[in-house]
Amino acid sequence: MEKLKHIIRTQDFDHEFLESLFKRTSEIKNELVSGKYPYSFSDSLNGRILASLFYEESTRTRFSFESAMLRLGGEVVGTEAAKLFSSATKGESLEDTIRIVDNYAHVIVLRHKQDDAAEIAAKYSEVPVINAGSGKGHHPTQTLLDLYTINEELGGIDGKKIAMIGDLANGRTVRSLAYILTKFKDVEIIFIAPENLKMKDDIKKHLREHKIKFSEKSSLEEVLPYIDIAYITRIQKERMSWWNYRKSRGKYKIGEKELNLMKKDARLMHPLPHVEEICLSPEIEQTDIRVAYFRQADNGLYVRMALLEYLLK
Amino acid sequence: MEKLKHIIRTQDFDHEFLESLFKRTSEIKNELVSGKYPYSFSDSLNGRILASLFYEESTRTRFSFESAMLRLGGEVVGTEAAKLFSSATKGESLEDTIRIVDNYAHVIVLRHKQDDAAEIAAKYSEVPVINAGSGKGHHPTQTLLDLYTINEELGGIDGKKIAMIGDLANGRTVRSLAYILTKFKDVEIIFIAPENLKMKDDIKKHLREHKIKFSEKSSLEEVLPYIDIAYITRIQKERMSWWNYRKSRGKYKIGEKELNLMKKDARLMHPLPHVEEICLSPEIEQTDIRVAYFRQADNGLYVRMALLEYLLK
Amino acid sequence: MEKLKHIIRTQDFDHEFLESLFKRTSEIKNELVSGKYPYSFSDSLNGRILASLFYEESTRTRFSFESAMLRLGGEVVGTEAAKLFSSATKGESLEDTIRIVDNYAHVIVLRHKQDDAAEIAAKYSEVPVINAGSGKGHHPTQTLLDLYTINEELGGIDGKKIAMIGDLANGRTVRSLAYILTKFKDVEIIFIAPENLKMKDDIKKHLREHKIKFSEKSSLEEVLPYIDIAYITRIQKERMSWWNYRKSRGKYKIGEKELNLMKKDARLMHPLPHVEEICLSPEIEQTDIRVAYFRQADNGLYVRMALLEYLLK
Repeated sequence: MEKLKHIIRTQDFDHEFLESLFKRTSEIKNELVSGKYPYSFSDSLNGRILASLFYEESTRTRFSFESAMLRLGGEVVGTEAAKLFSSATKGESLEDTIRIVDNYAHVIVLRHKQDDAAEIAAKYSEVPVINAGSGKGHHPTQTLLDLYTINEELGGIDGKKIAMIGDLANGRTVRSLAYILTKFKDVEIIFIAPENLKMKDDIKKHLREHKIKFSEKSSLEEVLPYIDIAYITRIQKERMSWWNYRKSRGKYKIGEKELNLMKKDARLMHPLPHVEEICLSPEIEQTDIRVAYFRQADNGLYVRMALLEYLLK
Repeated sequence: MEKLKHIIRTQDFDHEFLESLFKRTSEIKNELVSGKYPYSFSDSLNGRILASLFYEESTRTRFSFESAMLRLGGEVVGTEAAKLFSSATKGESLEDTIRIVDNYAHVIVLRHKQDDAAEIAAKYSEVPVINAGSGKGHHPTQTLLDLYTINEELGGIDGKKIAMIGDLANGRTVRSLAYILTKFKDVEIIFIAPENLKMKDDIKKHLREHKIKFSEKSSLEEVLPYIDIAYITRIQKERMSWWNYRKSRGKYKIGEKELNLMKKDARLMHPLPHVEEICLSPEIEQTDIRVAYFRQADNGLYVRMALLEYLLK
Repeated sequence: MEKLKHIIRTQDFDHEFLESLFKRTSEIKNELVSGKYPYSFSDSLNGRILASLFYEESTRTRFSFESAMLRLGGEVVGTEAAKLFSSATKGESLEDTIRIVDNYAHVIVLRHKQDDAAEIAAKYSEVPVINAGSGKGHHPTQTLLDLYTINEELGGIDGKKIAMIGDLANGRTVRSLAYILTKFKDVEIIFIAPENLKMKDDIKKHLREHKIKFSEKSSLEEVLPYIDIAYITRIQKERMSWWNYRKSRGKYKIGEKELNLMKKDARLMHPLPHVEEICLSPEIEQTDIRVAYFRQADNGLYVRMALLEYLLK
């Protein structure tokens, strides 16, 4: 694969890219965790500026990118609510915004409501664009940190059994993750979703084409003892009608009882923020090794550092 | 006293802590005022990141913390309106937000509407949390800069007579200041407040227990010639009913006449922003030495620098 | 001319200032375009902090200033929506805000709705204030980048024929540009505006006083083949009634046909964001040398870097 200029869609990642990115991610993580500042990468992006353009707010993702840039010695300009405060309100097109901002920064991190926003941005930008979430469609850096986490926590991805639970219709993280798992061997996927929020046919078709074993189940109790990863997502009420929300909320929950059905070396993941679909006490969250979602979020920082280095060095 | 890991409540400060912090604050201030960049501390927090999480907006306090961090060589990620833009809007708990953000930053500065927000944050954070104002209850760094200012302007705190004027019911600055003055000798406090905004009993009880002399008066003219510090506060209309506001606004004001009742070496303080409770011309504000509130605000920067150093070095 | 302490109004710039600023701008631009980091100026404002106080939002202008500061080695604290989030909402005067913020930063960049905001700020600030747009009146750094662009694209300003097209009543960029062109020789200006948005008499009077040749025309087709610069502006619907907007929108547009009426070495400029007054395809925008407005926006970065250096070194 040629070096990627932009990070737009999960589909663009091949096996080799993932392997090399994850190797670098682990190196960065180990150095940071050691706490021995200055790190080998502390000045690696000196003089480079990241522009964070968040048309949809996401403090967590934005902080993660900005912190990644700062730790590499770079700098940041940003807007946390471009939808409200940018020249979009004066009727400017995204293309034009990008054609201006690409002169103020060396990399643009874009979050936008529109499905094809990042692709448009990449077409007009003279600097790398990273898609930090576009509509329902893509959130490739989330997929990278998800995959990295599975790989790190389980020592590999090939052959793993992965349950995806919750809002599979609107959750871009599970859609992207299912998509990219086709690049690994002998993976098995089990979908568990409320009737009105099932995984869409496009993904199922893609899995069939790549001969990935998958099934749809309705009983958590039956599935949990079987799998290596339970990846549960929030019902995204902001992306559906009140009626659909009412029908689906609270249908699948993981509490202490459910957690204890899982194998000792299985892992519970979640893209966060979580609300009522996980009801574990903070104590269990802190002590049960199977609860992996805070480590998963932490990995976002390391993966994004590796990615910024990859794009800008 | 053990070294504080977090800065949450004014109550946690003892005499020794204050003395050592104020000494360092003065050193930093002197160097900065000299203007001889680079300063001895210009690289002291290189590679460290401060996250400013402002659920209630406060440009002044936020700038003060962020500027302090930058002057020590650190970096900043922040949100000026977490209430609107963070995952709190998706239903995430503060605990979870903190458990994520503590991996993106080395210190968290939190402002929140809820009285116990900073305590909750400190419980879950792996990095120091600084309370930059929580509900009506606490604003410990304001207390530090207030005390530092009294000490610097008057050459000491013991034995001083301090009038607190205005909204004593809702003003967390005066409540905290009254509280901590019990750690000093022979201080006398005079409360002057509209009938409906009087200092609450918990503080009065605390003062009695510590044998601090205090009284409640209603006449500014009588009190002003007597005291060393007049600490006046804004009627916080955002924290009361329109009716209460109407009854109390404009009741106590300091204009040129009142200022001139004060002793030549007394000082007028205010946590700012001030509105109609102070009606002095900009000229008098700039030339009358007794007007201390802009110097007081300036001290916020120096105290916060000393505090960040204390927590992170 | 004495060295300017603040950048408030276009009127304050004289010929010598412009010449020296543009010379430095070109040096900075050449170095940056070379891409050979570190640049001679990469550490030139180390330890200095810029405060961006945007009471009116403008991501583009804010990013441009912040990026300029960061590229000079400085740091930034900022608010993108001071109107919503600052102590202005508690009733604080701009004067007081400035008297606080000037201790947190070494330069203040202010954008405000009020025509005289920057002048007030400069009066009370102990650090340089840069007007990044105040009301309808002033936007001096836009004028600087406009002039710089004309000078660079045409190799000079003296003797040029400049058409100003669009909303000449509300457009502060065209008003300021017309004003400052009186400092150059043999310039000719042609105004083209909808009936209800014509250039105001104060500017026309000023041009007459300085014996600058100008005229008002209504036919684009007639004017375009004649001029060296077509400077077109957006109808600022946020500054007029719906009725006025309806009457004037779409009256003057530049599409491919109009562009081709222009001389081969003429230039089309726009302060951006543009909406329907320009209807050129992205391809033409990228390939036709006459389309200068993205280069013009890029120049904003370089001019602001030169300006920050000028004020802070």
